[in-house]
Amino acid sequence: MIETKTLSLSEIEDISFRALTAVGTCESNARPLAVATAATEADGVASHGLAYIPIYCEHVTCGKVDGQATPVVSTPRPGVVTVDAATGFAHAAIDAGFDALIPMAKSQGIAALAIHNSYNCGVLGYHTHRLAKAGLLGLGFTNAPASIAPSGGATPVVGTNPFSIAAPGADGPAVLIDQSASTIAKSEVMKHAREGKPIPVGWALDADGNPTTDPNVGLKGSMAPSGGYKGVGVALLTEIMAAAMTGATLGIDASPFSGTAGGPPKTGQFFMAIDPGATSAGAFAQRMEALVGAVKAQDGAHLPGDGRGAARKRAAAEGVAVNVATLEKIEAIIG
Amino acid sequence: MIETKTLSLSEIEDISFRALTAVGTCESNARPLAVATAATEADGVASHGLAYIPIYCEHVTCGKVDGQATPVVSTPRPGVVTVDAATGFAHAAIDAGFDALIPMAKSQGIAALAIHNSYNCGVLGYHTHRLAKAGLLGLGFTNAPASIAPSGGATPVVGTNPFSIAAPGADGPAVLIDQSASTIAKSEVMKHAREGKPIPVGWALDADGNPTTDPNVGLKGSMAPSGGYKGVGVALLTEIMAAAMTGATLGIDASPFSGTAGGPPKTGQFFMAIDPGATSAGAFAQRMEALVGAVKAQDGAHLPGDGRGAARKRAAAEGVAVNVATLEKIEAIIG
Repeated sequence: MIETKTLSLSEIEDISFRALTAVGTCESNARPLAVATAATEADGVASHGLAYIPIYCEHVTCGKVDGQATPVVSTPRPGVVTVDAATGFAHAAIDAGFDALIPMAKSQGIAALAIHNSYNCGVLGYHTHRLAKAGLLGLGFTNAPASIAPSGGATPVVGTNPFSIAAPGADGPAVLIDQSASTIAKSEVMKHAREGKPIPVGWALDADGNPTTDPNVGLKGSMAPSGGYKGVGVALLTEIMAAAMTGATLGIDASPFSGTAGGPPKTGQFFMAIDPGATSAGAFAQRMEALVGAVKAQDGAHLPGDGRGAARKRAAAEGVAVNVATLEKIEAIIG
Repeated sequence: MIETKTLSLSEIEDISFRALTAVGTCESNARPLAVATAATEADGVASHGLAYIPIYCEHVTCGKVDGQATPVVSTPRPGVVTVDAATGFAHAAIDAGFDALIPMAKSQGIAALAIHNSYNCGVLGYHTHRLAKAGLLGLGFTNAPASIAPSGGATPVVGTNPFSIAAPGADGPAVLIDQSASTIAKSEVMKHAREGKPIPVGWALDADGNPTTDPNVGLKGSMAPSGGYKGVGVALLTEIMAAAMTGATLGIDASPFSGTAGGPPKTGQFFMAIDPGATSAGAFAQRMEALVGAVKAQDGAHLPGDGRGAARKRAAAEGVAVNVATLEKIEAIIG
């Protein structure tokens, strides 16, 4: 039984902010990450919420992230924003980029944001959600150290690289998809390794590309792509968008997102924001309602993002039960 | 043993053009489809090459496609092109749209093309390939009549909806991904039904969402999404882009792409073209070379699009062996 304590969303934001600034993160970098941490706990994605705050703090301390970085925003074309995250937190870089991206997408009809010299952006769907709340269709891609092998090979070349799409609706995103290219999150395999439990066949492969049930063997091999070669295709799509199209570090060259070795990962994010009114001649909302309606009409059927949306509503009213052991770690950082 | 005859690519284009015009397609609609048919045969995708010409001709004759349609191009925003395909062939609409999209993407950095009132666009990667040949990164989405059920449901709401990305390289696309959201193409299940053969578990589901090995039961149920709920996510991504974002007909409302019933399907296509030079500060080519190099360095490993690229080189030199029975059907149409 894990001991929990219920915190309000503002309490979660506050404790995150105080821990980040305690280790030397400046306020303009700490605030967006603290806000995102509260939103991630609200969405019920505890794996990427407060549990990451001690890791973020460790990475500021060891230099994997520059807590004092100032993102540099440029607009090289009428439809393109680029941000050099300057090895700081991705969240501040994305915030700075969105300030330019959102009005640009509304005037141009479509705009792109390419971020390099960046870091793990947490839950990708948190960011595309913000675009949907601004009335835009948001598409996002983020890359990670390589852990999936190409078809026919056994050595990782791409990360478990998620993509996300958030389609605007009357009350938040009508649909929010945020999915990685692997069968299962790498963190699940790491958890099984820590607990000494075998993993199911189909989660990971050994260094020769063969199935394994040993999580430690899998972690030295590669993560299994979801749906075989089609999962590799989704991972490649994301790597091309988030790394090649931004000039960020490829997954094969990036330092790990965990641990203190290797310096800044310098990975990338790519976002596109599109005004549905411009492309659909006003038909978008009706089509989304019909599509969502066709799913909801089926008993037991659900859409990606439904679970997070329901959790968000509960959290706003009732707060979130968080892990006491994690809280104690964070309080020790605040001192 | 299937009897074949080797034709040059210009012979394939010519016979396609003559069949399409023989049934009343105007030259400006027939030519882009004939060119695409030859390119598709060159790529070794025989299922979508000459074999489709008798179907296209039937659809002109029955009114599923207006062979005399004139696509209507608009540019509602500096970064957006829309095309009303006017229930004509998708290829002419895409051609007309690309004429505006390509220069727009080069000046704006990114541009979108939204097509509605359209039809089956054949091989989606054929079109994104053209964007890559123009030095742009091409992303494409096309929708189709519903055949995949939502997670937790059993009634189809989205098609086997492919997406495609073509990343430009020095000599054609460095990577070309063109993959549907289902485990296997629906045409394979139809082929097994025609031949009275069982299908493997995992290809299709019955009307209650349970696995089946009977292709006829599967065709009345739904196609299995690749990788389970993640395949549904990819199908939804594509449906949102190709139908909701274009104002085209959703897969749940579209008439079938096969047979003569139901009138024009009025489905949609969505393309994005991005100038990698604008987003990556010139780093794109080096990153793509390193990514492709990391795959090619592994014995037996391959990238999506490698097979089509190799077939294309062979076909240009040697022509393509085509099915004589298909040729005879086409010659009967030409008369």
